[in-house]
Amino acid sequence: MFDLKGYLASKQENINSYLDKILQESDISCRIVTAMRYSLLAGGKRIRPVLCMAAVDSVGGVGENFLTEACAIEMIHTYSLIHDDLPAMDNDDLRRGRQTCHKAFDEATAILAGDALLTLAFQVLSSKSFLSNNKENEKNLNKSLQVINIIASASGYKGMIEGQMRDIASEGTNLDIDELKNLHYMKTGALIDASIIAGATMGGGNTEEIEKLHNYSKNIGLAFQVADDILNIEGDPVIMGKAAGTDETRKKVTYPSLIGIEKSKKLAMDLVNKGLIAIESFDKRSDPLRAIANYIIERKK
Amino acid sequence: MFDLKGYLASKQENINSYLDKILQESDISCRIVTAMRYSLLAGGKRIRPVLCMAAVDSVGGVGENFLTEACAIEMIHTYSLIHDDLPAMDNDDLRRGRQTCHKAFDEATAILAGDALLTLAFQVLSSKSFLSNNKENEKNLNKSLQVINIIASASGYKGMIEGQMRDIASEGTNLDIDELKNLHYMKTGALIDASIIAGATMGGGNTEEIEKLHNYSKNIGLAFQVADDILNIEGDPVIMGKAAGTDETRKKVTYPSLIGIEKSKKLAMDLVNKGLIAIESFDKRSDPLRAIANYIIERKK
Repeated sequence: MFDLKGYLASKQENINSYLDKILQESDISCRIVTAMRYSLLAGGKRIRPVLCMAAVDSVGGVGENFLTEACAIEMIHTYSLIHDDLPAMDNDDLRRGRQTCHKAFDEATAILAGDALLTLAFQVLSSKSFLSNNKENEKNLNKSLQVINIIASASGYKGMIEGQMRDIASEGTNLDIDELKNLHYMKTGALIDASIIAGATMGGGNTEEIEKLHNYSKNIGLAFQVADDILNIEGDPVIMGKAAGTDETRKKVTYPSLIGIEKSKKLAMDLVNKGLIAIESFDKRSDPLRAIANYIIERKK
Repeated sequence: MFDLKGYLASKQENINSYLDKILQESDISCRIVTAMRYSLLAGGKRIRPVLCMAAVDSVGGVGENFLTEACAIEMIHTYSLIHDDLPAMDNDDLRRGRQTCHKAFDEATAILAGDALLTLAFQVLSSKSFLSNNKENEKNLNKSLQVINIIASASGYKGMIEGQMRDIASEGTNLDIDELKNLHYMKTGALIDASIIAGATMGGGNTEEIEKLHNYSKNIGLAFQVADDILNIEGDPVIMGKAAGTDETRKKVTYPSLIGIEKSKKLAMDLVNKGLIAIESFDKRSDPLRAIANYIIERKK
């Protein structure tokens, strides 16, 4: 039986200490760094960087060699949370068990801290490979550019940002289940997918392997969102570190609001199963991906 | 005598049609693209992409081959304007002769349109080179990554974003002239510098050439800001497409407020001269850079 708890704890520790190291308060002592660190080091689940490194491993690479890239994805995820929480968007006060960035600092600082994390992601993504020099260099340089492109495309106006636009526009309106799935694929699925595809690319996966992993990530990304909607109803605010019941207050269209909570749970389970089937031909190096798929619907936060 | 007007008009046309092409409304018909296009195609001076391509030319490359990279810089500049104009920051209603993005759309859309332009810049910066394939490929791939790194560093928390933080913090406080210069180097100088260094890198400039161009850009970047402060007092709002006198209303520390308007004009002229001296060893392929340096203090908007 794969020890997911130990695996996650070990990966999270590496991720957290890398993020802590790359963005030092003493670097330049200023409010923007304090705000960036406040949100970045608030102890999230680190699911995207973990998936990224697990995808490297699953195609035969060494995930830990791509900690930089994995952490860049976490920076983008964190920036999106800071901006989503802003008064002009979701107007949330609580995130990861503490005040949101604009509450702890101010709105201008939160906007700029988000901008700075997004920018820093691309700075670190471009900082590594051109310093190395070996016969594999061209291949590695090419992969570095591809990874930047994969991540930027998924985060941009055809991906995560359009997802957030649709999420805002959907409040108080009626969406059918396909519109809701599309919204969620863009808002959260695209970056999860990019984490895995970037990992598989860096790990040297072939087209067939990448396609299978894409299939895995599409399904578990959606399952992740369905599970989030269920948690928003049934979750414990203390464990989650954020308020529950907020979707209903905002009259947000969610899976439970469209198909009921029992069918939502079944949908999440079906999606996880589809994800598991997509990678069933992979060997035990994909056990972390399998365990994470199951964790998505079992998690309490 | 170099025809700067014709040169700028021709470059601006290429830049505008490239930007128009890369971000098509019909792509996905949605509000975010409309907002991005609204701000991106509002007819700015395009000084950064022009400087970038002129720097390529000045070291013996072909500037027009790097229109993509030049336009990516304009996207980053535009994103920074959209976010700077937000109510939480400068709260400006007018930009480039029309309503600011959050006025024409709404605050959430403006935040996300800025985010999307920043992200799109890195998407296009990473989209080009790995499709090509020739013996120069490794060198080109390396340069592409370096250029991404130069631009991301200049735009980030140690550059443009920290400049905006200091700008906000400085309102109503006292800065001395060195603090003001540092603020401006970060807020506007860093990205201008990056435009030129990126151009010189892509054009194949050697270390000495890049150092000279860096010297040029540091001086003209600062001159640009001093000239902006002067225009804020003496400029015609109709020609500028934005309000005048706003610095005084906000009690902003500016060069004129610190050293008076006549000394500010002399400072701008001295800086332009230093910039010109830095590149005096360059041949006539640097005439556009020379003409732009002079234009900075002569411009009316």
